[in-house]
Amino acid sequence: MKALAKLNPNISYKQNKLDLKHLDELVRALVQEKDRFALSKAITLVESENKTDQELAEQLLLKIGQPENPGFRIGITGSPGTGKSTLIEGLGLYLIEKGLKPAILAIDPSSESTGGSILGDKTRMQNLSQSTTAFIRPSPAGKSLGGVARKTRESTLLLEAAKYDPILVETVGVGQSETTVKWMTDLFILIISPGSGDEIQGIKRGIVELADIIVINKMDGALEKQAVETMHQYANALHILRPKSNGWKTEIIGVSAIENKNIDALWDLIIRFKEHINENKIFDSNRKAQNLKWFEDHIQEGLNKRLLSIPFIQNHYNSFKEQVITGERTPFHAANTFLNIIESGFER
Amino acid sequence: MKALAKLNPNISYKQNKLDLKHLDELVRALVQEKDRFALSKAITLVESENKTDQELAEQLLLKIGQPENPGFRIGITGSPGTGKSTLIEGLGLYLIEKGLKPAILAIDPSSESTGGSILGDKTRMQNLSQSTTAFIRPSPAGKSLGGVARKTRESTLLLEAAKYDPILVETVGVGQSETTVKWMTDLFILIISPGSGDEIQGIKRGIVELADIIVINKMDGALEKQAVETMHQYANALHILRPKSNGWKTEIIGVSAIENKNIDALWDLIIRFKEHINENKIFDSNRKAQNLKWFEDHIQEGLNKRLLSIPFIQNHYNSFKEQVITGERTPFHAANTFLNIIESGFER
Repeated sequence: MKALAKLNPNISYKQNKLDLKHLDELVRALVQEKDRFALSKAITLVESENKTDQELAEQLLLKIGQPENPGFRIGITGSPGTGKSTLIEGLGLYLIEKGLKPAILAIDPSSESTGGSILGDKTRMQNLSQSTTAFIRPSPAGKSLGGVARKTRESTLLLEAAKYDPILVETVGVGQSETTVKWMTDLFILIISPGSGDEIQGIKRGIVELADIIVINKMDGALEKQAVETMHQYANALHILRPKSNGWKTEIIGVSAIENKNIDALWDLIIRFKEHINENKIFDSNRKAQNLKWFEDHIQEGLNKRLLSIPFIQNHYNSFKEQVITGERTPFHAANTFLNIIESGFER
Repeated sequence: MKALAKLNPNISYKQNKLDLKHLDELVRALVQEKDRFALSKAITLVESENKTDQELAEQLLLKIGQPENPGFRIGITGSPGTGKSTLIEGLGLYLIEKGLKPAILAIDPSSESTGGSILGDKTRMQNLSQSTTAFIRPSPAGKSLGGVARKTRESTLLLEAAKYDPILVETVGVGQSETTVKWMTDLFILIISPGSGDEIQGIKRGIVELADIIVINKMDGALEKQAVETMHQYANALHILRPKSNGWKTEIIGVSAIENKNIDALWDLIIRFKEHINENKIFDSNRKAQNLKWFEDHIQEGLNKRLLSIPFIQNHYNSFKEQVITGERTPFHAANTFLNIIESGFER
């Protein structure tokens, strides 16, 4: 970062306090110079919870607009211990060699109880993070998956503005995060490590159904035989699934991230998928559906926040909240009365 | 159900079409007669997506109010295959024998992709479901976990009005559902089956931290030895966790649901927990915090729905949505412009 900052030492958007008049500079540095520092700064702005920052971020995104040639967005999920980071690093290094400019965003749905970060390990992807071609960015820990998702989507636009392609969106396979990632990417990859096949049943089934490509990692050394078995198990499990609406038959591939085995074959498979969805116009229709969902989510998230920050509404909210605390009203009654007031205020 | 309907064959709330003037009858049958048919009808009303039904449900809940002597609410979670249903059935039958009147609510976060139900198996809890003392109710499959949660909470109030106690809220340990259940119960039990201890790491850690009691099921036959090992593994894992804020040290107990072994010891442990949180006033402060969260969630969910159903707002929404579909505006720009209009409409 230090080396990069040297490139444009006098540009004022590099000051800690960014304001509206420097926004055009930031946009220019990001879009035209593809400056990494500007990109970092822009993502930080988008991720900020500060109200002034959020207003700036809003302006920034309006100036950036939609990308003309969007990067291919690849969602990658897998439980901890499946070697996800090693695989993404291997894939990233392979793509750099091929002359591409990959970016990695990681969504981190932290444990609500501890507030700690699963992806806190700073030593992840050491080789890839030293590259000045790739761009790696972990999402901040946060309580709201919806919030993290919005920020990740906005960061994707910034990466695309700086011409990163492909964009890998990584998530730990916990709960709803994989559905969220599915809704912001063009291709969904599930990474699995060789195992008893337990994962096929129950809990993981929903995730398996979402996957366009299933990667069995750790096909090396002592685990190689088990990896092949796991591939067969998943191949069998996939038979019972409904065919995907995009006309693609879910592919299973075995790789070894640590031995760098089959990473090229994985990339070939990704390209084949990309061609498939381009030919069938699925890429475009997916993106349209995603844009619509983004619009809906943004309103879903923003409407409450905006309304509850209006003083008149805030006062009502706080007074009903107080009545719930004292037990004067049941939560149900208090919430309903509040909603009635807001609704009738609008209909007036 | 047929046998029960005979009890009050002429009561008009039993008609298919329920209306406001029969609501008092329904409330009386539910609260005073503890009529099972009335209870079923009331829960169906609360679960309905129909607008008229929802208005009736609102009135019903206002009439019911908060319970004077609320039932003890026990959240039970576990992955598929841990023997959750068998254990809950065993516990339920044990409680009936003790003269209690248990109810079971199951939250079912279905796979978004298939829309299918994990808990669709109707043969679950066959013995318990034949009892006329216990009351079993699976939640409907639905896309929004928030929605299912609200309905489950409202159903809990109905069960408490009909004097069911304890109320077991069952959920598959998928994603955020266990956090949701934690927020609506007094005690949180995690069921685990004997295994490699893999579950301790990563993905499951957040759930383990939430648990007040961890039950290692299937401590029988060939699995008995492994069950004991798993108990030790979890006992060790718990050492590294922060102490719980409720002053309770998470307890681990091994049981066999199919051999009915240690079900009584589990119940004793539950009672010990109940006494602990009563003595320390944790029960009351928990319920207060939960009421506050309920109030907030209800508004979070209701505000958007109410506002977006106002014709003036709906028209704006649809026109911006159209602009996203045609590509005239980016989702971000469309959503923001919409939000600005709503916000300024209120400030006028």
